[in-house]
Amino acid sequence: MRMVDLIEKKREGQSLSKQEIEFIISEYTNNQIPDYQMSALLMAIFFKDMTDEEITHLTLAMAHSGEVMDLTSIEGIKVDKHSTGGVGDTTTLILAPLVASVDVPVAKMSGRGLGYTGGTLDKLEAIPGFKIEVSESQFVDLVNESKVAVIGQSGDLAPADKKLYALRDVTATVDSIPLIASSIMSKKIAAGADAIVLDVTTGDGAFMKNLDDARRLAHTMVRIGALANRQTMAVISDMSQPLGEAIGNSLEVVEAIETLQGNGPEDLTEMCYALGSQMVVLAKKADTLEEARELLKEALESGRALEKFKEMIHNQGGDASIVDEPEKLLTARYEIAVPAKKSGVIQQMVANELGIAAMMLGAGRKTKEDEIDHAVGLKLHKKVGESVSEGDVLLTIFSNTEDVEEVIELIQANITIGETGEEPPLIHEIITE
Amino acid sequence: MRMVDLIEKKREGQSLSKQEIEFIISEYTNNQIPDYQMSALLMAIFFKDMTDEEITHLTLAMAHSGEVMDLTSIEGIKVDKHSTGGVGDTTTLILAPLVASVDVPVAKMSGRGLGYTGGTLDKLEAIPGFKIEVSESQFVDLVNESKVAVIGQSGDLAPADKKLYALRDVTATVDSIPLIASSIMSKKIAAGADAIVLDVTTGDGAFMKNLDDARRLAHTMVRIGALANRQTMAVISDMSQPLGEAIGNSLEVVEAIETLQGNGPEDLTEMCYALGSQMVVLAKKADTLEEARELLKEALESGRALEKFKEMIHNQGGDASIVDEPEKLLTARYEIAVPAKKSGVIQQMVANELGIAAMMLGAGRKTKEDEIDHAVGLKLHKKVGESVSEGDVLLTIFSNTEDVEEVIELIQANITIGETGEEPPLIHEIITE
Repeated sequence: MRMVDLIEKKREGQSLSKQEIEFIISEYTNNQIPDYQMSALLMAIFFKDMTDEEITHLTLAMAHSGEVMDLTSIEGIKVDKHSTGGVGDTTTLILAPLVASVDVPVAKMSGRGLGYTGGTLDKLEAIPGFKIEVSESQFVDLVNESKVAVIGQSGDLAPADKKLYALRDVTATVDSIPLIASSIMSKKIAAGADAIVLDVTTGDGAFMKNLDDARRLAHTMVRIGALANRQTMAVISDMSQPLGEAIGNSLEVVEAIETLQGNGPEDLTEMCYALGSQMVVLAKKADTLEEARELLKEALESGRALEKFKEMIHNQGGDASIVDEPEKLLTARYEIAVPAKKSGVIQQMVANELGIAAMMLGAGRKTKEDEIDHAVGLKLHKKVGESVSEGDVLLTIFSNTEDVEEVIELIQANITIGETGEEPPLIHEIITE
Repeated sequence: MRMVDLIEKKREGQSLSKQEIEFIISEYTNNQIPDYQMSALLMAIFFKDMTDEEITHLTLAMAHSGEVMDLTSIEGIKVDKHSTGGVGDTTTLILAPLVASVDVPVAKMSGRGLGYTGGTLDKLEAIPGFKIEVSESQFVDLVNESKVAVIGQSGDLAPADKKLYALRDVTATVDSIPLIASSIMSKKIAAGADAIVLDVTTGDGAFMKNLDDARRLAHTMVRIGALANRQTMAVISDMSQPLGEAIGNSLEVVEAIETLQGNGPEDLTEMCYALGSQMVVLAKKADTLEEARELLKEALESGRALEKFKEMIHNQGGDASIVDEPEKLLTARYEIAVPAKKSGVIQQMVANELGIAAMMLGAGRKTKEDEIDHAVGLKLHKKVGESVSEGDVLLTIFSNTEDVEEVIELIQANITIGETGEEPPLIHEIITE
């Protein structure tokens, strides 16, 4: 088999066989196929697409290019969740204890934030004492005993995907649905997922700028999940404005606690029910999404979900008292109100720009090496579609410096107030097959 | 300027500017752009094509990526000729003295054979004593005095093209008209051509398998030649069967002499008139192709062209007596006749397969390092469309070994005799703008 022939085959729009795709991934991982051939193939895939079968073979080949987590000693169906990226996305912090509290095992490995704001690990580390480095055997024990553990990714999962992603980034081959789908799904499968729930975000602040692309990506991943014997469901959610009200690590932990107390923002709560119901159905703890939602509601309203969060924090060495006294987490030196400059209705709050504003305060990383400041961030008091009067506080900046002029400028430039405005739909579609 | 943005721009079907193309070529030549980005761009060009302006900028950027021959001290308009490849293509050996004999300066740098059969340099070296290594100043003097010199390429012409071609070869991006056109034209411009005549071959034995592609390539090169201020004309010729009757180095020198004597094969003679007329018009020695053809005919029929060939051989240290005694060149130990296996009409003589047969005898190189045997090759006695009776000699093998069974098998497998058959057109089109 010669790589140049396989490039030509794809270039001519033909499908690559399982054997051919396995050859490509294994040789590329072992540095036997050079980057310059792989990037030519990636560009050919960009133009000629792949069939669901091809994407499935690619996904599995990448998943098995390195270590694959063996979670078989955890009882039950392990359902993983993945979001294609958002701003103020606190769902994992809420979903992990919520779903675990209805007996679904949550064995989750998370990553650090690579975008503007912190990732789930960064948020958990805002809890004093919380340990994200846990051995594999301890991880399995925690989930078997408590149904929940959220830890940092260890080992060498899907190295082919890591290598390919770095190459795509510099060769203008990131925006390709078969390549995005296989990248996401390979990592989930390597992490040991039996079933997968996907939050595919769409809008200016998301990777998929329009609904059609988001829909195609979601359907592709659900179909290849099935072909790879990992039942998969997806939600297409709106990411034109931030999800919930908090952007920043400690602020989002507080928001997670409030949500688990039943006092969270409506959109965030609804998103957790939508994604959580899919997880519960895939774990076979309910037959329908409606039934699953009832189970979750009961767990939340009864306080069991909140108790589970306490238990999880305690299990991983964290200070669980913050659940009862969340104000302990609010340690930013300055709280600065940003007022509405005129009266009207909020038309737009550009999600990624507000994410950048939070990053400028220190809530996210500009480069991989940056340290995160857990205390800082933004708390929104108004969202798109709400009326405001001139001078009303739109949001509060939590900062450790008084010098926030640039941040305020960026925020003001990205919140539009007009005569009319409508709340965007939170969830565009729910895709179960 | 970032290469990844330029790849994306082309991927989205936009045109790259002169400045952007110059940046790409200069940085790539200086190893500042890695192969993996260049191959992604090449694949994007394969799918999204380039405008004539883009191809012109690319051509000139590659032409100026290294040394550019300065032929200004040669009087007159220097017209170069290029063929996209054929089997038994003896035209340069004939055209150089023929055109020079009507006062058109021929300052030609040729290459060695990279395909199945020898290149012009290999053929010239079949003439005892002929030197193809000539200093630049001596080269200029020869052309000024005698109007003709054919030498080996010296120096570092169009290094960007050399680097790009090697990359295209392993990334399935060879078959792209803008890339082929710019590659050919950049080398001709770097070699100092004022004007260019192109022989674009088409058919099974050629690089362009069908007439449409050949036509597109020819028109593209003629247009970008004009945009680059190098007047360009082209002939689209058939390469389904070999051109002329000889395949092999000494055999082709003999055939060139016969043609210059007025006794050459009809197709080869006609091809030389067609290409030669274009050279004469571009050199402004005639106003029309018809007028140019008359000049050439007169030069050939009067014997002046043959004398010019003698002069050229003598000038470059060769034994010019071979022009009067060409049989001195026929030194192969064995001459083996290949007979027709049945009666009928010749339907097909697959050019590239007969080229491979000649290579197997030693007339061409399997690898760059192979030595060429000048004496060996094939001499066709019949061509497509001719009637044969069983046992008629189709062609003679000139060999230095008796063990030619495999060669005969290959030849027989690639000459088809049927009930009817038609001579293919020699020239499909003449393209002057």
